[in-house]
Amino acid sequence: MVEKLTPMSEDFNEWYTDIIQQAQLADYSPVKGTMVIRPYGYSIWESVQSYLDKKFKETGHQNAYFPLFIPNSFIQKEAEHVEGFSPELATVTHAGGKKLEEPLVVRPTSETIINHMFAKWIKSHRDLPMLINQWANVVRWEMRTRLFLRTSEFLWQEGHTAHATESEATEEALRMLEIYSEFAENAAAVSVVKGIKSANERFAGATRTYSIEAMMKDMKALQAGTSHELGQNFSKAFEIQFSDEENNLQHPYQTSWGVSTRLIGMIIMAHGDDKGLNLPPKLAPHQVVIIPITPNEDSKGSVLDATNKIREELGKSFRVYIDDRDNISPGFKFNEWELKGVPLRIEIGPRDVENKTVVFSRRDGVDGKFNVNFDDVGTKVSETLDNIHNNLLESSKNFRKENTVHVDSYEDLISALNGDPGFVTCFWDENSDDEDKVKAETKATLRCYVLDEEKTDKAINNENTQGKLAIFSKAY
Amino acid sequence: MVEKLTPMSEDFNEWYTDIIQQAQLADYSPVKGTMVIRPYGYSIWESVQSYLDKKFKETGHQNAYFPLFIPNSFIQKEAEHVEGFSPELATVTHAGGKKLEEPLVVRPTSETIINHMFAKWIKSHRDLPMLINQWANVVRWEMRTRLFLRTSEFLWQEGHTAHATESEATEEALRMLEIYSEFAENAAAVSVVKGIKSANERFAGATRTYSIEAMMKDMKALQAGTSHELGQNFSKAFEIQFSDEENNLQHPYQTSWGVSTRLIGMIIMAHGDDKGLNLPPKLAPHQVVIIPITPNEDSKGSVLDATNKIREELGKSFRVYIDDRDNISPGFKFNEWELKGVPLRIEIGPRDVENKTVVFSRRDGVDGKFNVNFDDVGTKVSETLDNIHNNLLESSKNFRKENTVHVDSYEDLISALNGDPGFVTCFWDENSDDEDKVKAETKATLRCYVLDEEKTDKAINNENTQGKLAIFSKAY
Repeated sequence: MVEKLTPMSEDFNEWYTDIIQQAQLADYSPVKGTMVIRPYGYSIWESVQSYLDKKFKETGHQNAYFPLFIPNSFIQKEAEHVEGFSPELATVTHAGGKKLEEPLVVRPTSETIINHMFAKWIKSHRDLPMLINQWANVVRWEMRTRLFLRTSEFLWQEGHTAHATESEATEEALRMLEIYSEFAENAAAVSVVKGIKSANERFAGATRTYSIEAMMKDMKALQAGTSHELGQNFSKAFEIQFSDEENNLQHPYQTSWGVSTRLIGMIIMAHGDDKGLNLPPKLAPHQVVIIPITPNEDSKGSVLDATNKIREELGKSFRVYIDDRDNISPGFKFNEWELKGVPLRIEIGPRDVENKTVVFSRRDGVDGKFNVNFDDVGTKVSETLDNIHNNLLESSKNFRKENTVHVDSYEDLISALNGDPGFVTCFWDENSDDEDKVKAETKATLRCYVLDEEKTDKAINNENTQGKLAIFSKAY
Repeated sequence: MVEKLTPMSEDFNEWYTDIIQQAQLADYSPVKGTMVIRPYGYSIWESVQSYLDKKFKETGHQNAYFPLFIPNSFIQKEAEHVEGFSPELATVTHAGGKKLEEPLVVRPTSETIINHMFAKWIKSHRDLPMLINQWANVVRWEMRTRLFLRTSEFLWQEGHTAHATESEATEEALRMLEIYSEFAENAAAVSVVKGIKSANERFAGATRTYSIEAMMKDMKALQAGTSHELGQNFSKAFEIQFSDEENNLQHPYQTSWGVSTRLIGMIIMAHGDDKGLNLPPKLAPHQVVIIPITPNEDSKGSVLDATNKIREELGKSFRVYIDDRDNISPGFKFNEWELKGVPLRIEIGPRDVENKTVVFSRRDGVDGKFNVNFDDVGTKVSETLDNIHNNLLESSKNFRKENTVHVDSYEDLISALNGDPGFVTCFWDENSDDEDKVKAETKATLRCYVLDEEKTDKAINNENTQGKLAIFSKAY
């Protein structure tokens, strides 16, 4: 904990890597491209899981588990729809002490094996909708690693559903997008844009890909979750059929949707600052850290008593941690817990005990230090955590707005994307070649067409057409 | 759901496989040796996880996540302690579109990589105890598969801890054994024996292996959980060192402990019968199934109203499922939910609505059908589920006792093990060759020395020595 954190303004990537290591979120592993998620980081993932899992179940989904290994032939079948997985794949060639007849692929997604099982399980319209989710590890080989954002193995959830009609599938895909968006804002305190991808950017097997896009502190975009309508692409490839109410065989319409441990990267880059992490209260491993200040032996007992009493009360409703290490100074502890992004710090010293007060200090820096009476601590913690959440969310929203410009011509789009970083919006006529051109000239991509705004206007890439509101940006 | 369940007495293995498929706990996957855990089975695993995870956290453990792939060289390092993994290993030789310089092993356990990280994280006595747990998938190649009991991939948790002293490590290993035993009895309603393994049967890297052993309905033993004291074996092999309070470098003492999805196999085989599954209330996906009986259209509305009202009340405290399918007869539903092992069935028909009563029927068959007044349903469900749990636990305990014999001579041991199936206890003087001989003559193994009974007596394999109370049995 004595290393210095690289300032964000000096080198954003170094800052990001420093935080992860110093706050003990994750560590490099001996296998290139993979990482160890340490308890402090994993605890955030557990909160993400528990929040989303509840929402998934409330909307009728059930969890299941599918095998890690997928027959090579399945990947070929998918390849009609999905191109370019192959360099990403890790392949098991030997097992049980000998060479396998058919190599096995370590799942890059479970799409194929789940659809194989769906073909076995789905017979009648009564079996629909089939609403399955899996929490699992997946492997996509990466040469250049960035912890949480790009590693050869990562943790995620993948939802896979089958429906009797196309409109039910559309409804499902949008329902899950809404859950992701609600999670981002209500749990992670990150403001996101809900959008639909252009053909260039959508999942190859999908008919429509929806996503939520967030802006990081370096003004780049991060795609935080995706939800796909798959039409009948997979149900035809995997011969999934159900007999409808008139006993005719039909292919169901499908969706898939997922979020991953990349969300932890989002949380770091959306809220962090030069002091370190800045965790949203609903996902923070410790929502409150209490630091007893014991400058002399006389008052130590009464300070620790008060600390324990307050912890006991708060512990019923909040995740509270007491840092009573006596080989480390209070100032050092303050820095460490700021680095670790604990939303609220409470200090209790001898004078506080006399006055029956404690000192609150918000990680987001609002309100400075302020005193709270013993009797009000519970209420005040609840109120303060709410305020911190709202402030983080509001800041994230304002930050995106401040760093978004709107342009009315193709030339302005290119120069804006090559100028200050940030989002650039414009009205755009879907056109794959034009998108490629923008990418080649600026390295930016069409992140999404904004979903909530149905407004159209003259397209900047085709003056004869009405374009849809699109966001361009460099992205993770 | 129209297939017939093979009777247990006719063919135990067929019965087991039939139940798993017909109750939709799991399904075979296209990759030989692996399985798909279906929602009904996975839900049991989720209850196991949530029960144990809470206990792990209450006792100070933190979850983390370590990579799936392990460098081949690590396995060699472990091989000094652990022999014979190699034919069990699945190896990745190709990734990222080319051959890897060093093959990667898919983790058969994370022991080696966790110890590699411990060497990095543990520096001082202040870092101890280090108490880490991981929920993950692991792969041990299997030729002959038995769903939940022996598959090439399975789900488990593995705890890994490091301590400053040997006595703390002993305490930890026994604490976790106690948690497993408490889980088996309090959650799974399976009576278990806590024991310590003989040198022949213990984990090769351990100095002591503790286990819980349960008796299945075919009277074979199932090892349901293990907890190991590792001494300094791994800390020396992986060069884990901490500076103690006097600033001397020391190797910590370690433990590891785990349970897996094999517990689902235990639950099936400990409680099931010729009607199917018989689930312990605390782990059952549905604790109560309500079946409205609607023989005519006139009364249908009032029956469904009453059903919904009762579901609403019970839903606050219990996992309740309403089976209101109208294309299936009540009798068929009764069979199906018995097959699926739902602990308590509630029927509501037109006459019940008139009498303001419902009909309870316990899956364990006790008390037959009995009426319960509308107003008492909540209390009665709670009471009945408790009674079912206690009955299952008691039955499991009695079944083991009834099928355990004690012998006083080596000849009696051999003939008992070759006679009726079951546990055979005796006083035994630890001796590897004698154990091998018993195994060769009977296929039975020394399951454990009973932990709670300190009694010793003349050993049956060495009349000059006091032996410890040991259990021999055929086992899964």
